[in-house]
Amino acid sequence: MNPSDERPGLEVPARVIPVPTTISPEAQAMLALGPMPAPEYPALDDAEGWRRMIAATDQAMLSMWTDAGMASPDGFEFEELTFDGVRVFVITPDDLDPNDGRVYLDIHGGAFIVGGGDLCRVIGAMTAAKLHMRVWTVDYRMPPDHPFPAGLDDCVAAYRALLERNRPEEIVVGGTSAGGTLSAALVLRARDEGLPMPAVAILLTPGTDLTQASDSFRTNAGVDTILRPDAGEPLLLYAGGHDLRDPYVSPVYGDFSLGFPPTLLASGTRDMLLSDTVRLHRALRAAGVDAELHVFEAAPHGFFRGQAPEDRELDREVAAFIARHCPMVVTGSG
Amino acid sequence: MNPSDERPGLEVPARVIPVPTTISPEAQAMLALGPMPAPEYPALDDAEGWRRMIAATDQAMLSMWTDAGMASPDGFEFEELTFDGVRVFVITPDDLDPNDGRVYLDIHGGAFIVGGGDLCRVIGAMTAAKLHMRVWTVDYRMPPDHPFPAGLDDCVAAYRALLERNRPEEIVVGGTSAGGTLSAALVLRARDEGLPMPAVAILLTPGTDLTQASDSFRTNAGVDTILRPDAGEPLLLYAGGHDLRDPYVSPVYGDFSLGFPPTLLASGTRDMLLSDTVRLHRALRAAGVDAELHVFEAAPHGFFRGQAPEDRELDREVAAFIARHCPMVVTGSG
Repeated sequence: MNPSDERPGLEVPARVIPVPTTISPEAQAMLALGPMPAPEYPALDDAEGWRRMIAATDQAMLSMWTDAGMASPDGFEFEELTFDGVRVFVITPDDLDPNDGRVYLDIHGGAFIVGGGDLCRVIGAMTAAKLHMRVWTVDYRMPPDHPFPAGLDDCVAAYRALLERNRPEEIVVGGTSAGGTLSAALVLRARDEGLPMPAVAILLTPGTDLTQASDSFRTNAGVDTILRPDAGEPLLLYAGGHDLRDPYVSPVYGDFSLGFPPTLLASGTRDMLLSDTVRLHRALRAAGVDAELHVFEAAPHGFFRGQAPEDRELDREVAAFIARHCPMVVTGSG
Repeated sequence: MNPSDERPGLEVPARVIPVPTTISPEAQAMLALGPMPAPEYPALDDAEGWRRMIAATDQAMLSMWTDAGMASPDGFEFEELTFDGVRVFVITPDDLDPNDGRVYLDIHGGAFIVGGGDLCRVIGAMTAAKLHMRVWTVDYRMPPDHPFPAGLDDCVAAYRALLERNRPEEIVVGGTSAGGTLSAALVLRARDEGLPMPAVAILLTPGTDLTQASDSFRTNAGVDTILRPDAGEPLLLYAGGHDLRDPYVSPVYGDFSLGFPPTLLASGTRDMLLSDTVRLHRALRAAGVDAELHVFEAAPHGFFRGQAPEDRELDREVAAFIARHCPMVVTGSG
């Protein structure tokens, strides 16, 4: 099937890779923790096993962020809206300029399986705090009960609701990891359905090819301390048997010559999704899209968990990109 | 010494990495060749051994490019100039617009040891052909007889001579690998010596940290089929005992807040110099320099030897970047 299967592979011997000194002490400390412990994934048809694993993972992440004081940051107003049955949290900095009508539509990550519910609200609050913007964060449906396209449908429903209240040139769509996948797929769907496109897309270490064909899925397996070498399992659960080359599943297969907004992409040299990220960057550039790439030294999937100066540097790049392509416009003047 | 030496390293097991299907057939064919055969490097003090190895390597590369018809391309005028004892080949496309006063100052690569003499002329001709620009290519001195700073001195001498004939806003400085190192060092030296800076720098998979501290020096060792895991040896021969953290040796340690021209950087996900490239990109961005990064899926050091569509894609990015930041100006109008 795969033409390369006939060819001799490249034999790479076992190695011990030290923590590099070329990153901040905080980033070094994170890499020194080694691979993140992770339970076995259940069999794909073991829905109850997935539900248990997902609940435990969500609870562990929520505790971690609650302990870190990031779950209920001061200085933000929280609102809960529902559109077509889709829950959206709206998070607004108290001191936001009343003329600032911009909204960051934040699609949470979590391998298409975790990050829902309260966790989605926390992730949205962190985005609002980092960028000092109003955030809409979508509590989209996920497997095992709701495989593709349920989650994407929910993101599109939220985007449609957002378009009823805001002008497209005020809208940023973005997310990390699976949130990057869904953000890119959402923009493709919106475009194909004749909706106006958002002003900007922010795709942070996005999964763009769920066939797992990307080279860094192998070259960085075991090097990435966050994604596990079997990281493909939840992707199959999400796709639920759907064609993995459908651009709504794997956005790298999209036709970007039909239009796509200015896009910032970022990854790390140790990220298993480095190839997914750079391949989408190249596809966008080949189609003439204004696409900007940032790659961080030694960063695994998801960067340094928000704990290192490198994460702040990425935030500044994102903020500058948004300021350039989606500047605040005083309401009524545009 | 190295604080990370105290920490447990990351144990990465042996693997067989297949040729990815995510790149062009031409690029797949190159990766299928496996690691480039390479002789043992001589001991650092075995000057005669280095001379023999360098001569044999130069001859092999020259034969390869001569056989490929790239050594004496039709449609170019070749001129040989000498400034302060430094030989420069000037290569001009026959059909160049007579109003186009721009010059690409091409600093050849070759790990600071190979690529001189006739080979430097061939490399320059390929640059002139790819970009359809006038090229000055510098036959700078190299080890074992001429370690740092002889080569950089020669590049600066050529740049000074170029400045006597051309306006800085007409000058692009660029190179691949060691040529990228020397290009960045040349810009820093020019700036520090009070010379005007060129309009653009093109740094293709540059070595930026000759201390070999970059993470991809280890994560991509054995994954990169072009650079060998002992790739650091010629760097030490070049430095000749000089402080490896001198920005003229390792440009990533430069202070870019003092100024640096718009810069395009490129690398590949399998490149041992991926980290060197992205670290310089980040250093430039942190200083507010207009720096643009391109990373090619599964590309080893030096991309795909000019044989794949991916190489053409890189050429187009370079040409577009030059057109944007160093546009042709009709002589006399500026």
